[in-house]
Amino acid sequence: MSTTYPDLAGLKALPLDELPRLAGQIRSFLVDDVCRTGGHLGPNLGVVELTIALHRVFDSPKDHVLFDTGHQTYVHKILTGRSADFATLRKDRGLAGYPQRSESVHDHVENPHASTALSYADRLAKANRLAGSDDRHVVAVIGDGAMTGGLAWEALNNLGSSQEPVVVGLNDNGRSYGPTVGGFARHLSRLRAGHRERNNLFQQMGLSCLGPVDGHDFAALEGALRQAVALRRPTVVHCVTEKGRGYQHAENDEVDRMHGIGVLDPISGRAMPSSARSWTAVFENEMAEVGSEREDVVCVTAAMLRPVGLGRFAERFPDRVFDVGIAEQHAVSSAVGLAMGGARPVVCLYATFLNRALDQALMDVALHRLPVTFVLDRAGITGPDGPSHHDVWDLALLGNVPGLRIAAPRDTARLAEQLREAVAVTDGPTAVHFPKAVADPPIPALRHMDRLDVLHRSSHQPLDVLIVAVGVTAAAALQAARLIEHQGHGVTVVDPRWVLPVTRLLEHLAARHRLVVTVEDGVRAGGIGTALAQACADAHVRPPVLNLGVPRAFVPHGDRDSILARCGLDAASIARTALGALSAPAACDPASARAAL
Amino acid sequence: MSTTYPDLAGLKALPLDELPRLAGQIRSFLVDDVCRTGGHLGPNLGVVELTIALHRVFDSPKDHVLFDTGHQTYVHKILTGRSADFATLRKDRGLAGYPQRSESVHDHVENPHASTALSYADRLAKANRLAGSDDRHVVAVIGDGAMTGGLAWEALNNLGSSQEPVVVGLNDNGRSYGPTVGGFARHLSRLRAGHRERNNLFQQMGLSCLGPVDGHDFAALEGALRQAVALRRPTVVHCVTEKGRGYQHAENDEVDRMHGIGVLDPISGRAMPSSARSWTAVFENEMAEVGSEREDVVCVTAAMLRPVGLGRFAERFPDRVFDVGIAEQHAVSSAVGLAMGGARPVVCLYATFLNRALDQALMDVALHRLPVTFVLDRAGITGPDGPSHHDVWDLALLGNVPGLRIAAPRDTARLAEQLREAVAVTDGPTAVHFPKAVADPPIPALRHMDRLDVLHRSSHQPLDVLIVAVGVTAAAALQAARLIEHQGHGVTVVDPRWVLPVTRLLEHLAARHRLVVTVEDGVRAGGIGTALAQACADAHVRPPVLNLGVPRAFVPHGDRDSILARCGLDAASIARTALGALSAPAACDPASARAAL
Repeated sequence: MSTTYPDLAGLKALPLDELPRLAGQIRSFLVDDVCRTGGHLGPNLGVVELTIALHRVFDSPKDHVLFDTGHQTYVHKILTGRSADFATLRKDRGLAGYPQRSESVHDHVENPHASTALSYADRLAKANRLAGSDDRHVVAVIGDGAMTGGLAWEALNNLGSSQEPVVVGLNDNGRSYGPTVGGFARHLSRLRAGHRERNNLFQQMGLSCLGPVDGHDFAALEGALRQAVALRRPTVVHCVTEKGRGYQHAENDEVDRMHGIGVLDPISGRAMPSSARSWTAVFENEMAEVGSEREDVVCVTAAMLRPVGLGRFAERFPDRVFDVGIAEQHAVSSAVGLAMGGARPVVCLYATFLNRALDQALMDVALHRLPVTFVLDRAGITGPDGPSHHDVWDLALLGNVPGLRIAAPRDTARLAEQLREAVAVTDGPTAVHFPKAVADPPIPALRHMDRLDVLHRSSHQPLDVLIVAVGVTAAAALQAARLIEHQGHGVTVVDPRWVLPVTRLLEHLAARHRLVVTVEDGVRAGGIGTALAQACADAHVRPPVLNLGVPRAFVPHGDRDSILARCGLDAASIARTALGALSAPAACDPASARAAL
Repeated sequence: MSTTYPDLAGLKALPLDELPRLAGQIRSFLVDDVCRTGGHLGPNLGVVELTIALHRVFDSPKDHVLFDTGHQTYVHKILTGRSADFATLRKDRGLAGYPQRSESVHDHVENPHASTALSYADRLAKANRLAGSDDRHVVAVIGDGAMTGGLAWEALNNLGSSQEPVVVGLNDNGRSYGPTVGGFARHLSRLRAGHRERNNLFQQMGLSCLGPVDGHDFAALEGALRQAVALRRPTVVHCVTEKGRGYQHAENDEVDRMHGIGVLDPISGRAMPSSARSWTAVFENEMAEVGSEREDVVCVTAAMLRPVGLGRFAERFPDRVFDVGIAEQHAVSSAVGLAMGGARPVVCLYATFLNRALDQALMDVALHRLPVTFVLDRAGITGPDGPSHHDVWDLALLGNVPGLRIAAPRDTARLAEQLREAVAVTDGPTAVHFPKAVADPPIPALRHMDRLDVLHRSSHQPLDVLIVAVGVTAAAALQAARLIEHQGHGVTVVDPRWVLPVTRLLEHLAARHRLVVTVEDGVRAGGIGTALAQACADAHVRPPVLNLGVPRAFVPHGDRDSILARCGLDAASIARTALGALSAPAACDPASARAAL
C-alpha cells in the first residue's frame, strides 16, 4: 500500500465534503492490512469518522485525546503518521496493537484494560488547570461496552461533582464483543430510539449530554464535539456507530462484527485454513460435557462468552450461563451469590482480567470458602497483544488466596481431566490456568505419585537436578532435561498438576537432588516456585531452589516463543541456568560485606 | 446489662406502637456497650428502625438478609440473640465486629469490604430460583456511600436486566465516613428533597424505586418493604436515615457521626485520655509539611480523608486533596491523570483496600512508569476488625508491580524520612507501608550501609544468623536476636528500609551467615522474604533463607500482639524458628521419595 494520508494540519484543512473519500480510503487500508496481519478490525472500522472528527476538532498532542480500550486506535495511528508501519502490526518490535508512548507523542495512555479513560480524563483536566494550562482540552473516547465496568461509574460519579470540562466521546455501537448487556445498555437504546427523558442518566449524574448523533456523519460529529468544548463542563457526546462498518463480512458477522481477527482472506472474509486446535476449544467441549452431566453447574463470563469458550455451553444451557458485561468484579461476586444458593459456578475469564477481581476472589469467594472455579484462559505469555494481555500475574495473585487450589494442566488432555477435578471440589475455590496456544500432543506421565506426575527420570545416577514444571512449561522442561543429561547429569522432571498448595512429596523429591529448578510462564516474584522454595526451606531441605519465570517487568508484544526465550523459559535457557548453578561456586564473593561489617 | 430482647417470632408479634420503645432500648444498649469496647457506633445507631423492620417483614434465615459493609450489623446481632456477647465485641475469640457465619445462621456474608451485597443478591436470587426455592426472598441493605463503588454499579446494571426480585434497602444517610461525594449523592439529595424525576437513576437502569421513606418511621418502612416484595422485581426502597441517631454526641459529630470509636465515656462522649501517638498522626503532620514545601503535591483518598491522616493537608490545601468516595479503582486511575498532567499524586488508602485497585496500580500507574506514591496505612495485622481488615497482602501484591519501589519504615522517624524519599522519586511509582499502631520509640541504626540500616551485630563471631526485618517487625527481630545470642550464636539484624527491589548488599551479607531469616507482618507467600530468597538463589548464595510471615489463611480478629504471636512473629517465635533451623539435620528423610522413584 503506498497510500499517503494528510498530516493533522492537512486533515484540519480538508473541506468537509472530502472527508468521506478519506474515510473510504482508511477503511480499505484497514481491511487489507489487518486481514494480512490479524488484529482488531471491527472496532476500528466503526470509529473512522469519529477519529477523523476528533483530530479536526482537537489539537493533538496539545489537547489530550485519550482512547479507552486502546484496540480502537488504528485510525488514530494512521492519522498520526504510522500507516507505513502497519505491516508489522503486533509483531516482534513492530507497531503495537494499542497506543504506545514510544511510538508517538499523540499516544498518552497505553492501557488497554477497559473503563479507565474517564478516570484519567477527570484528573488530567484538573492537573492541567493546576498547571495553568486551561487551554489544553481533554477528550476521552469510551465505548458503551466499557461503561458497564465499575471504574467508569466511579469516574462518572466524580466527574459529576468535579465539573472538570472533559468531553466524553461515547462510542455507542451497542456491543462489547457481543451485544452490550444490562440496564445501562437498555437506557442507551431508549435514547438512541429518540425517547426523551427529562434527564438521562448522565445528566442525573451531573454531566451534560449531547446527541445521540450519527457517528458516521462528519458534520453532526464535529458540531457536537465543538458544542461540548464550548460548554466548559463535563459533557457526553453520544455517538451512535456501527462496529465493522463498511466491510460486508464484518457487518454480517452476528457473533462479534469481526472484533479481533487472525489472518483472513480479505475478499472472502474467511480465515486461512488451519487444522490447529486451541486449548480454548478443548475447554469449550469439556465444559459443555460437564454441563450436561451436572445440572448445578453454571458459568459466568465478563463480556467474553465465545472468546473464553462458553459458546457451546451457552447453546446447550442458555439459562445457566451469565454474561455480566465488562464487569469482572461482579462476575466474581455474583458467583458468590450463585454458590451460596447451591449452584456450582465456573467463572471464565482471560487471566489478565482477573487482576480486576482480586479483592472479590479473596474477600467474597475465599473468605466464605465457597466452591467457585476460576477458569483462566490465555494465562502466561500470549504474544501479539503486549504487556497488558500477557497474563503473567494470575498464579502469583491466586497464590495469596487462602484455601484456593490451582491446577496448571501441562497439555489439553490434563486440561479436560483437571477441569473435572476442579469442579468436583466442594469445600473451597479452585482455579484452572491454561495458555493461549495450539494444543500440542499430550505429554505422558512415566509414573503417577500421589497428585504428582513424573515425566522424566534419567536412567543414570546420581540425580542432580529436579525440574518442577508448572503447566505448559513441561515440554520445554523435558527438552531441557535432555540437554542437561548430555552433560552427564541425572535429571528428574515432575509436573505437580495441582501447583498450589505444594504437595509434601515435592520436598522429599527435592531432598534427593543437588538442585531444584522450578519453571513457570508467569512472574517469578511470588510465583509457584517461591511456594516450593518456602516449603523446602521450612522442611530444612538443603538443595538450592532456583525459580525461573517471567521477570518483574512489562513484557512487550511479539511472537510467543521468542518472548519465552527472552525470558529464559525455552529449553536451552533452562538447561543453561541449571548447568550454571551446578557448577557455581558455593557463594558469591562476600568481600564487600565483610569489609563493611 | 441484663436487657433481654424478643426473638424473631416475638419481634414479628409486637404491635407497631411498641417498636419505638424497643428501638430506644437498643440504642441505649449500643451506646453503653460500644462505648465500653469501642467499635462502629454511628452506623448502627442509624439503622435501628430499619433492621427491626427488616426482621419483621422478612423471615430470616429462610429469607436472605444481606448487609453490605458489615459494620452496620450490630442491631441485627442483637435481634438474632447475640446481645449477651457484646462485652467481648472485637476481642480475642469474642463477638466479631462484622457478620460471621460461625456465630449465627442469620449471617450469610462476612465480607466487610463495601459495595458487594447487590452482586451477591442478584445471583443468590437466581440460584434460589434454579433450586426451586422461589419463596426465599433476598434483601440487600446497602448505604449510599457504598453505592459510589464501581462494583455496585456493575450489579445495578445486571439487576436491571436479570430482573431478579431482589429488594434493595438503600440506607441513605448521606455519608460514608464524611458526606458522600459525587454526582450520585447529589441525585439522591434531589430525590430526598422531593424532586420528581420522570425516571430516577434506578428506574433508568431497569429497577423499581419506592420512597424516599423516613428510615426511622416503622409504618413507612414496613409498608415500603412489603410493597417491594409484592412487586417481584428488583426494587430499591430508598430509606432516609440519620447516622448516629439518638446519641447526642454522635449527632453533633460533624466529622463522621462517631463512625468508629475507641473506648469512650458514654456521658461526655469523650475518648479516654491517652498520650499515645499513632503512626497515622506522624504521617498526617509530615504530609502537611511536604504539601507546604511542594505545590505540585496533591493527595487522593477514597472516602477516608481523616482516617488516613489527610485532615491537616486538607485544611491547608483544600484544592489539592481529592476525596473520590468509596472508589479505590478511581482513586488510583485518577492519580494517573494527575501525574500525566504534571502533578505529584499521593494516594492514601487503608492497605486492605488496595486489593480493589491492583489492576490500576499495575496497568495504569506502573505500565506508564508514573511517579505516584501509595501510602498504605493500617498495613499488616490490625487487630479487632478481623480477616478483611488485617492487611496482609499489600507487600505481596505490590511485589508483582514492575518498577514499584516499596518503603517499609521500622519506626515513625523513618516513616517521616521515607515518605519524603518516596515523594522525591520521579521515574516511577513508590509505596510506603505502615501499621495501625502506637508510635514506639525510634530504633537507631548502628550503621548505614548503602540503603540498608544495620540494627544489631553480635560482638562474638562467627555470625550464624542474619535477620532481615521488614518495617515494624524490627523491634521483635531485635529482641529475637538477643534470645538467639543467649544460645551462643552470633546474629546480625538489618532493616532494608526500601524492601523492594532487593539491594545486592543483602545477598553479600547473607553469604556471610549460616542462616537467613526474613520477618514481615504480611503474607509469607509471595512476600518480601521470597524476593530475598530468589536473589540469594540467583547469586548462588548457599545459606538457607527462612521466610517468616503471616500464613496463607484468614486471620481472625483479636489483640494485635496475640495475633502476631500466633503467626510466629513475636520475638520468642522468631528465635525458636532460627535456633531450630540452625540445629536441624541437613535434609528431611527422603526415604519415601527414594522408594517411589
